[in-house]
Amino acid sequence: MARLIDALRKLPGVGPKSAQRMAFHLLDRDRAAAEQLANAIHDALTGVGRCPSCRMFFEDAACRYCTEARKATGTICVVEGPADLQAIENSTPFRGRYFVLMGRLSPLDGVGPDELGLPQLGRILTDEGVKEMIIATNPTQEGEATAFFLAEMAKARGVKVTRIAHGVPMGGEIEYVDGGTLAHAISGRQPL
Amino acid sequence: MARLIDALRKLPGVGPKSAQRMAFHLLDRDRAAAEQLANAIHDALTGVGRCPSCRMFFEDAACRYCTEARKATGTICVVEGPADLQAIENSTPFRGRYFVLMGRLSPLDGVGPDELGLPQLGRILTDEGVKEMIIATNPTQEGEATAFFLAEMAKARGVKVTRIAHGVPMGGEIEYVDGGTLAHAISGRQPL
Repeated sequence: MARLIDALRKLPGVGPKSAQRMAFHLLDRDRAAAEQLANAIHDALTGVGRCPSCRMFFEDAACRYCTEARKATGTICVVEGPADLQAIENSTPFRGRYFVLMGRLSPLDGVGPDELGLPQLGRILTDEGVKEMIIATNPTQEGEATAFFLAEMAKARGVKVTRIAHGVPMGGEIEYVDGGTLAHAISGRQPL
Repeated sequence: MARLIDALRKLPGVGPKSAQRMAFHLLDRDRAAAEQLANAIHDALTGVGRCPSCRMFFEDAACRYCTEARKATGTICVVEGPADLQAIENSTPFRGRYFVLMGRLSPLDGVGPDELGLPQLGRILTDEGVKEMIIATNPTQEGEATAFFLAEMAKARGVKVTRIAHGVPMGGEIEYVDGGTLAHAISGRQPL
């Protein structure tokens, strides 16, 4: 029992009280669900891998984001994590390739270019006919530093680099957005 | 007393309870502040006017946003309200002219081009050497409709039109921004 509670506490956003409630629920009320959960976790651990090319999770025979059609677009979008890829895929018409860094440059935490798979990204840029690299790291300090590093990498290889737009979010009010965003919105203004 | 409370309730964000508390405070604890407030309101009503050119509030002999130096930049930034002008002025390096609409197009509420001073803006675009009009209306539905109308006006007069950038706000996380903003961020990506 204590081992189960400890294990549940490892889930993000689950504290000791919630873990206890979950454990009681699984054992007491819903043993079938507990069995299913255990099997699902086990199957995912054995069945879900990482695409060797884009580093996204995948469970089919081939990665659905590394198809020939996507490669033919000549664009590759670099994101920090799988959730970013999913967000872009769900709400934008972008249908090119991706590269998932699984993190951001953070030398103090020991995360350097090697941990983010940048040598591999370099090979893709050099060998696989990429015409444009879209940098979609988060506009945080570390994300910006990572973007700068990525841009230098692409420029050294003669690949065009673009950065997703920063500015006022849709539905936002100019009066209330922060100064940095507003300055970006003015400097990045676009012809109509 | 009741008249004072009613008058205080006209302030934005002040309900009956707050108005009562303010009235008691002014009369009971701080009669000097009450006197100052009354005079300040009176002076502002007589001393603060609207610039006939940009429609911003002004209190000096000449509007500080309609100087020759600003006119010489050839750029005019169109905003919905005085607070937007202030935000852009405070946090961006933009130092061109402004035009304050004092609202947005909203036919159902009886707000058309005349109420927003668009005939006057049209004269400025035609006669005063404007090279670029930056549209900084809010990215809401009405703000977008207003932006569209403004863009047509400028194009008809051969003036270059730009729109402030929409995208992921600084410090934001791609994973959590709404789909519309993300789609704008990808389509409006900029070369690095």
